[in-house]
Amino acid sequence: MTLNTINPAFSRTFAPPIMESRNWLDGVTFPPDRPLINLAQAAPLDPPPEGLRRAIADACLTQTAAHLYGPVLGLPELRAEVAAQWSAAYGGAVSEDQVVITQGCNQAFCAIMATLAGPGDEVILPTPWYFNHKMWLDMTSVTAVPLPTEADLIPDPERAAALITPATKAIVLISPNNPGGAEYPAETLRGFLDLCRSRGIALIVDETYRDFDSRDGRPHELFTDPDWADTLIHLYSFSKAYRLTGHRVGLAIASKARLKEVEKFLDTVAICPNQLGQIGALWGLRNLSQWVAGERAEILARRSAMLDGFSKLEGWKMLGCGAYFAYVEHPDITDSPAYAQRLVREGGVLLLPGTMFTPEDDPSGRKQFRIAFANVDVQGIATLMERLPLARP
Amino acid sequence: MTLNTINPAFSRTFAPPIMESRNWLDGVTFPPDRPLINLAQAAPLDPPPEGLRRAIADACLTQTAAHLYGPVLGLPELRAEVAAQWSAAYGGAVSEDQVVITQGCNQAFCAIMATLAGPGDEVILPTPWYFNHKMWLDMTSVTAVPLPTEADLIPDPERAAALITPATKAIVLISPNNPGGAEYPAETLRGFLDLCRSRGIALIVDETYRDFDSRDGRPHELFTDPDWADTLIHLYSFSKAYRLTGHRVGLAIASKARLKEVEKFLDTVAICPNQLGQIGALWGLRNLSQWVAGERAEILARRSAMLDGFSKLEGWKMLGCGAYFAYVEHPDITDSPAYAQRLVREGGVLLLPGTMFTPEDDPSGRKQFRIAFANVDVQGIATLMERLPLARP
Repeated sequence: MTLNTINPAFSRTFAPPIMESRNWLDGVTFPPDRPLINLAQAAPLDPPPEGLRRAIADACLTQTAAHLYGPVLGLPELRAEVAAQWSAAYGGAVSEDQVVITQGCNQAFCAIMATLAGPGDEVILPTPWYFNHKMWLDMTSVTAVPLPTEADLIPDPERAAALITPATKAIVLISPNNPGGAEYPAETLRGFLDLCRSRGIALIVDETYRDFDSRDGRPHELFTDPDWADTLIHLYSFSKAYRLTGHRVGLAIASKARLKEVEKFLDTVAICPNQLGQIGALWGLRNLSQWVAGERAEILARRSAMLDGFSKLEGWKMLGCGAYFAYVEHPDITDSPAYAQRLVREGGVLLLPGTMFTPEDDPSGRKQFRIAFANVDVQGIATLMERLPLARP
Repeated sequence: MTLNTINPAFSRTFAPPIMESRNWLDGVTFPPDRPLINLAQAAPLDPPPEGLRRAIADACLTQTAAHLYGPVLGLPELRAEVAAQWSAAYGGAVSEDQVVITQGCNQAFCAIMATLAGPGDEVILPTPWYFNHKMWLDMTSVTAVPLPTEADLIPDPERAAALITPATKAIVLISPNNPGGAEYPAETLRGFLDLCRSRGIALIVDETYRDFDSRDGRPHELFTDPDWADTLIHLYSFSKAYRLTGHRVGLAIASKARLKEVEKFLDTVAICPNQLGQIGALWGLRNLSQWVAGERAEILARRSAMLDGFSKLEGWKMLGCGAYFAYVEHPDITDSPAYAQRLVREGGVLLLPGTMFTPEDDPSGRKQFRIAFANVDVQGIATLMERLPLARP
């Protein structure tokens, strides 16, 4: 059946790439001695710690409020805890009424972006980009303006400045980056804040993966700027740190004035975030900092194994590596989707081609790949290094 | 602080009305012998039955999958159960791949509508309308075209036909209606299906309150049409029937082709519905039909008390009454927001003025009110009848 009525903006965007890549597994058998190594997506595969699970279960059994509508912008206790912890962690002042809890970080992005940009507006995204950001802009008839990054996948504020037009409403950065793995230097982020402020546009910094940054201390000084709220919007997800992917809890931090607009969107799209997920996130914030440190150490060990492994691999070049992701290229590969599908069959490895993260007219994606390594242990990464060369470039 | 960057579509829409009405309570004291009767919003105030709470808590403690990402379109078991139960209840064929689970019914509406209509398009909403529908259309630069209903708050397909232009993409009906309470006759819904099909536009029927319809048997025959999926889109919420408001679970039923487009939206905005809420909804579908019948009987008793009470109340006219809502008017009232605020102070009753549900240029809202009576028992409704006349029109 064809659709008699379709918003043309939907025809213009693409289907979710993760699902497309799953189709590549159809009909391929993986022998028991060489099971598939799935590097298409990285997300926790184990449940949260028992204490957190108990906190949710107890609330479910004993708290009436855990089953009822809550405030549109989220549980007051959770917003206050975030404000206190973020203020301490970033060395700046974040108040409770600058925090909004959302049904996952993707929703935080959509809610914020809806208040910023509408049809005909432009938003600058460094490439390779996060496909859901691109999809939202497509679906809302906002033009995504690609900002090519430098050789280390770090974007340059000066290059961004040249792309700003009167239609530009925001620049979106992700650090540590998905898909690129790059950890943006503090001075890069500062440069973008200054640029955005001087041009009167918003700077969105998505720090979903900040708990797995390899650098110690705070990753930037943006919140120490007493006027951060005039330009900066911060995004975060509870999914990765506390293994809450199935609960859908994220957040945005922005000016109180912007959150009044965000509230219109969330009242209409969400009504409120689900209560049990928020209860879990709050318990995690209050009890799991040591546990998260252990999780980070494991991810950093895997990151080291990736860096080490690729340094010895012929032909392959590591462009970025951090948090859950590495982004690599091979100069002899010219059709990354075809190579990725061949690698499934010939090497038993699934990873996503760079074309899923780059504009159609950008040739770089055709030789590049995202490797979501976070779910694969050091031994598995060693196996990956043996299998990658199995498919011919 | 003023916002340097704001999507003008957001300035054009309004703040969530429920929150505005809460401000009217500020500074008003309600004596212990005359506590506030809050009829602004009706939603369950008690937790779900213990079995459902246990099912969620058990899954939380024992099922890893309850904490991880699930399919974008929802849990397969829940989609299958909905397909089977809806097919039986409506006497038609609904398949599993025509069902999508969403983070509440509001999200189902937004996801469906995003695939239908973009900037410059038009969507017909009978008035009084559900404000979140209007807000979504505003925020996405779609024009909401008001369709005035008849004296009984039922819309007329012929009157709707005259409003259809080449830009019209859909007509949205809610039955039983929020805010109007009207239960749309089966032939009205059939008339709208025929109209929409003949004009190549979509018909959305939101049946969030169907479990509290006063009529026995199925409320319409639309799903018995073998080609329903070419035009019809059905929406439903698990929030009311199973008291799951805080879990955010709803659904849409539409053609498989449309759900492919909906998947793009949900992948970007939600990634997936939260798992525990879906587990609760599935348990409810499988175990709570008798319990829901009891809930319905109580709501119908309250409805009778409303009908009876208003039939004896001087000046007041009941326009519609069903499920959670009654919609009333008083010919001598010409400024319903002012009256509503006076009624808080003079009568200790909070209800919403019709202006929150009607276009600004529609005078009817200025003498009308929505009464969300579902949370008030028969005794409380008797008290309401005593208090309504306390404020002078």
